[in-house]
Amino acid sequence: MRPELLDRMLSLLPQQGTRPELAQMLDMLHDYPRRGGKGVRSELLLLSAQAHGVQPGSPEWEQALWLAAALELFQNWVLIHDDIADDSEERRGRPALHRLHGIPLALNAGDALHAYMWAAVARADVPGALDEFLTMIHRTAEGQHLDLYWVEHGEWNLQEEDYLEMVRLKTGFYTVVTPLRLGALAASRTPHPEFTGAGLALGTAFQIRDDVLNLTGDPVKYGKEIGGDLAEGKRTLVTLHWLAHAGETQRHVFLDQMRRARPDKSPEVLDDILQWFRASGSVDYAQAYADAEAQRGLELLHCALEEAGTQSAALIRVVETLAQREA
Amino acid sequence: MRPELLDRMLSLLPQQGTRPELAQMLDMLHDYPRRGGKGVRSELLLLSAQAHGVQPGSPEWEQALWLAAALELFQNWVLIHDDIADDSEERRGRPALHRLHGIPLALNAGDALHAYMWAAVARADVPGALDEFLTMIHRTAEGQHLDLYWVEHGEWNLQEEDYLEMVRLKTGFYTVVTPLRLGALAASRTPHPEFTGAGLALGTAFQIRDDVLNLTGDPVKYGKEIGGDLAEGKRTLVTLHWLAHAGETQRHVFLDQMRRARPDKSPEVLDDILQWFRASGSVDYAQAYADAEAQRGLELLHCALEEAGTQSAALIRVVETLAQREA
Repeated sequence: MRPELLDRMLSLLPQQGTRPELAQMLDMLHDYPRRGGKGVRSELLLLSAQAHGVQPGSPEWEQALWLAAALELFQNWVLIHDDIADDSEERRGRPALHRLHGIPLALNAGDALHAYMWAAVARADVPGALDEFLTMIHRTAEGQHLDLYWVEHGEWNLQEEDYLEMVRLKTGFYTVVTPLRLGALAASRTPHPEFTGAGLALGTAFQIRDDVLNLTGDPVKYGKEIGGDLAEGKRTLVTLHWLAHAGETQRHVFLDQMRRARPDKSPEVLDDILQWFRASGSVDYAQAYADAEAQRGLELLHCALEEAGTQSAALIRVVETLAQREA
Repeated sequence: MRPELLDRMLSLLPQQGTRPELAQMLDMLHDYPRRGGKGVRSELLLLSAQAHGVQPGSPEWEQALWLAAALELFQNWVLIHDDIADDSEERRGRPALHRLHGIPLALNAGDALHAYMWAAVARADVPGALDEFLTMIHRTAEGQHLDLYWVEHGEWNLQEEDYLEMVRLKTGFYTVVTPLRLGALAASRTPHPEFTGAGLALGTAFQIRDDVLNLTGDPVKYGKEIGGDLAEGKRTLVTLHWLAHAGETQRHVFLDQMRRARPDKSPEVLDDILQWFRASGSVDYAQAYADAEAQRGLELLHCALEEAGTQSAALIRVVETLAQREA
C-alpha cells in the first residue's frame, strides 16, 4: 500500500487517548493498518481514477486518495471482524487482533474503524461514493453470510455455482468492482456498466488464487496459517471439486473432520487431507479456473476501458497479477 | 417506538432474499427491530425537532423521521454487537441474536445493519447529520472500550468518576446529546452548546437507572435477565459504591466471583451477592444519584431551550421519565 494512504487513514483517528485505556484502544485501531496490507484495492481505485483522466496533484486526485483510504479502512475493519468470525489465528504474519485482546475489544475496535471509514468517504466528498460504499458493504455482508451460514449449518451439499455466487458477493465487489467504479466517480464520470462483469470475474480469480495460496503458499509471503481455511471449515473451489471426485473413504474422513468444532479437529488428519488435496488434480483445477476467470475479466475490462475512451497499461498490469500472485 | 419508524427502517433493506440463506439473513436483520424497542432516542429527536419549529408533515419532518430511523438502526446494530461482547442471554424478552444463530452470523448481521444506518442518514440529507453520527459512534465506542477493558483486565480499582466517564461516553451521547442535537439540525438550527452538558447528565441518569433495574426490575417489563450485569462482571455505580463500603469477607467473595469467566461463576453465590447489594444502601444511593443527575440535566435543558427560543412540554415530559422508568 502507498505509505501516504496509511498516514491519511490514521490522520482521521484521535491523535492520543485521554486516558490509558483509550490510548490502548488507539493502538488497537492502528494495529492492522500498520501491519501493511498489499493495497490491491486502493491501487486499483487510483489507477482507475487516472485512467479516467484524474491527474495526480489535482483536487480530484486528492478526493480519489480519500476514497482509497476509505477502501483500506473498509478492508481493515472487515478483516478484524472476519478473523473473529473464523477464529483465525494469524493475520499478516502476527496473531489476529481478537487473539491478542479478546473478542469483545476486537469487535468494538472493528466497529470504530467502520465509522472512521465513513469519515474518509465524507472527506472525499465525491457524488455517488456513499451509495457505492453502501452497495459494496451490503454485497460483501451477503457473501459473508453465505460463507458463514454453510459453516454454521455444516452444509456441504453445494455446487461450484454456489461457491462462485458466494465469492462474487463476498470478494468480487470490494476487491475489483467497487474500486473500478469509484475511480470513475472520482473523475466525475459514470462508471462503465461492464466494470461489474469484469470486476466480478477478476474478483473471483483473486479469491480462488487466495484459496490456492492458503493450501500451497509460502507462509512468510502469505501471512496467514497455511491450511487455515481447512481448519476453519471453509468451502472453496478446491474442496468442492475434490469432494465431487474423492473416494468414499477419504470423503468420509473429510466430512467427519468438518463436522467437528475447530479444537476437536485432528491436526494430523487435517495434514493428511491437505496432502490428498495437493495430490488430487483439484488444486490445479482451481488454479486453471482462476486463470480463465482472470483472462475473461481482463478482456471485459479491456473492452470497457476502450468504450469509455480510456486506456491504462498500469491498471491492466495490476489486474494481470491477481490470479498469479504469491501474497 | 412509533410504528411508522419500524416500517421506515425496514424499507431500506432488500424486500426478499435471492436464495434461502439470504432470506434467513434478512430475517436476522429484521429480528431485533421487530422485537420493539422503547424508542426513547428517536422520540427525543423528534420532540427536539418539533421544539425547534419542525412541523409534522413538513419536508423537514420527513428528514427528521429518517434521522430517527437511523438512530433506531444504530441502537439495533449496537445491541447485536453488545450482546456478543457481553455474551448476554436475553434481549427484549427473547434469546440474544448470537445465542440463536452463533457469533459469526450475528456479528455479520450487526455490520450489515450498521451500513443500513448510514443509508438512513444519507436519505435524511440533513447538513451536519453525518458528522453528528460519526461523533456519536466514536464516543460510544470509546465508552464501550472502557467498559469492556475493565472486564477483560479484571480492573476493579476504579473510582465513581471512572464509571461516570465511561457512562457519559457509552450512553450519554447516543441516548440524549445526539438526539437533541439532531433535532436542531433537522430544523436547520445550530444546536445549543448546553445540549451537551444537559444530555450527558440525563444520559447518565438513564444508564444508572438501567443498572438499578438490572438488579431490582420486573423481568417481564425489563426484557433482560435480572442480575445479568453481575454475571457479565459489569462495573456499575452500585457495585463500585458497595465495594467501597463492604466488609472484607463479602468483598473477597465478590472479587473471587468476578475473577471467574461467566460459566465458572456460581449462580448461588451471585444470588447472595444480589441480596447483599439490595440490603446495602448502594442501590438507593445509585437511584438517588440518578435522580439528582436527571434534575440537573433537566434544569440545564430548560435553560438551553429557553435561550434557543423554544419550549416543549412534551420533550420535558419524556426527559423527566428517564431516571424513574420501569423498562
